[in-house]
Amino acid sequence: MTLTNGQWRLAKRPEGMVRESDFEFVEEPVGAIQDGEVLIRNLYLAFEPAMRGWLNDVPSYIPPVAIGEVMRASTVGQVIESKNSAYREGQLVTGMFGWQEFFIGGGTGRANAGPMGGISLVPDDIPPYRMLSLFGGTGLTAYFGLHKIHPVKEGDNVLVSGAAGATGSVVVQIARILGAGKVVGIAGGSEKCAWLVDRAKIDGAIDYKNENVGRRIREEFPKGVDLFFDNVGGDILDATLPRMVDNGRVTICGGISSYNEKELPPGPRNFMQIVVHRLSVRGFILFDHIAAAGEAIADLKRWNAAGDLVVEEDIQEGFKNTPKTFLRLFQGKNLGKQLLKIADAE
Amino acid sequence: MTLTNGQWRLAKRPEGMVRESDFEFVEEPVGAIQDGEVLIRNLYLAFEPAMRGWLNDVPSYIPPVAIGEVMRASTVGQVIESKNSAYREGQLVTGMFGWQEFFIGGGTGRANAGPMGGISLVPDDIPPYRMLSLFGGTGLTAYFGLHKIHPVKEGDNVLVSGAAGATGSVVVQIARILGAGKVVGIAGGSEKCAWLVDRAKIDGAIDYKNENVGRRIREEFPKGVDLFFDNVGGDILDATLPRMVDNGRVTICGGISSYNEKELPPGPRNFMQIVVHRLSVRGFILFDHIAAAGEAIADLKRWNAAGDLVVEEDIQEGFKNTPKTFLRLFQGKNLGKQLLKIADAE
Repeated sequence: MTLTNGQWRLAKRPEGMVRESDFEFVEEPVGAIQDGEVLIRNLYLAFEPAMRGWLNDVPSYIPPVAIGEVMRASTVGQVIESKNSAYREGQLVTGMFGWQEFFIGGGTGRANAGPMGGISLVPDDIPPYRMLSLFGGTGLTAYFGLHKIHPVKEGDNVLVSGAAGATGSVVVQIARILGAGKVVGIAGGSEKCAWLVDRAKIDGAIDYKNENVGRRIREEFPKGVDLFFDNVGGDILDATLPRMVDNGRVTICGGISSYNEKELPPGPRNFMQIVVHRLSVRGFILFDHIAAAGEAIADLKRWNAAGDLVVEEDIQEGFKNTPKTFLRLFQGKNLGKQLLKIADAE
Repeated sequence: MTLTNGQWRLAKRPEGMVRESDFEFVEEPVGAIQDGEVLIRNLYLAFEPAMRGWLNDVPSYIPPVAIGEVMRASTVGQVIESKNSAYREGQLVTGMFGWQEFFIGGGTGRANAGPMGGISLVPDDIPPYRMLSLFGGTGLTAYFGLHKIHPVKEGDNVLVSGAAGATGSVVVQIARILGAGKVVGIAGGSEKCAWLVDRAKIDGAIDYKNENVGRRIREEFPKGVDLFFDNVGGDILDATLPRMVDNGRVTICGGISSYNEKELPPGPRNFMQIVVHRLSVRGFILFDHIAAAGEAIADLKRWNAAGDLVVEEDIQEGFKNTPKTFLRLFQGKNLGKQLLKIADAE
């Protein structure tokens, strides 16, 4: 049987808002695997805002995706053939296998889809796609942000933007679990805001689409924000900086508001509040902290099992919908982690 | 004898670039001093960019100067009459005595000119105006920035903006003294750049008025900047952020480029480099660290006496030139600390 590998490749660099037509669908036969290699069928693809940055031809923390290259992405797959003693047929695995139906890895002669490389086994006791949400980059980003960048302290007044997104939805809950005094999330629309209060069980939510963010921050935090975890940037960051306490901490995890701008938009007008309020503003990249993943995952598992930390995944279906599903992130459609199921496990 | 006190008061809030006409000259008789008070004749006025911020009616780290109020400023003066046992006639003193010829302080019934209050004695072994430069806010700001905010480490590649200004000119030298690997300053014009290399004895200078700052930073620091001490903000900050090393440190001391803008200008377009390069960006205010001033001044004195740390003051003359001298800061005219001598000591 000759397998055909459907792939979504980068067709051209997006200008401004990414479009489905920036990617092209290509099919090619799956070749035979060599000694040391494994053939993996992708089951779930994961989407995150940072992937938008990988499409720009500018130096960053990882090289851009090349034109004609399969789009880089984290996935969960199943080993369907193995000539590597570390993996056996049927095992569920995760890695950066890209926007394609099949991936050949594990050998030495063939490049992986992403610079991160590696094929990790999915533990038996969790839904496999959770390796792409709570137990993947999303959960780890939230965990490290609150532990290693600006650790949350007991009693902290914590504000989180993009709070119903994949990372934000975990951040707000970890902050609550670690003893923050008050946790408020900023999200778009009443459904997301209701989720934050009812399901994530935090103290409040600000609907940036229907409320004055600056005024609402002042209402929620009359004494100011101790720790701001920002996934959004732009106007929301600008509205928050003047509301920080003196010696406040700002963790910059992302800035989704600017990722699709044709020209780099201006930074926050309230930048000098960094001086006025003696702020510490820190950015971080998950990969730097990955050595501590074991401990992080143990905590996340325990909290999740105890019911303290709920996980939300938005699982779309169908490989043909890959670029469309990516766009959902920038349309604010996803609640929790955006995933796409493209095949069933055997 | 009835003394007349010439004063420069804030006449109106500047819109955009501060003008001489934003201040008005007023004379009033100096009243008799009460028990516990001292009468001080101002000899030197000090000027700093941050004073521009005190003219805006916005919440900040200290209240704005009120319309009709004597302009707040650090000064050095001489006690000419004392009814306070802590001070005696003839002593040189320093404090925030404002833009006026005479100041009455030391009592309990009369407010000081500034919220910082206090009358400190000038030591005998230094030129009195040096209390307003190296041994005043300027030197302390430089010292604390490099010790308490982002300490300079041995071998650091250090870039300083506003490097020929009052604070910057001290920062570059302290960085050199503390063992930085390479120190480069950004300043406007060849005279200032020559001063940085010839007198401050640092490794290089970038003339932002005549050179491409981004390209020159890359030339000076092909491996990137470890520590950026910023007094300027705006385009210079924007040009520097992409040139930082991973885990680089940015100390925001000031942002003179924006102080006279009518509307708050946008922040750095390269803001997201804080994430890409995992930067730590910290702002600070001198007053928070003032308890450690003794140790700082001891170090500054020793370095200065050993000839490792030269001090530059630009001393203009004449009380009538007070607002004009203030404007020199924003015209980039001063090399080192901007001072105005308004009277001789008796």
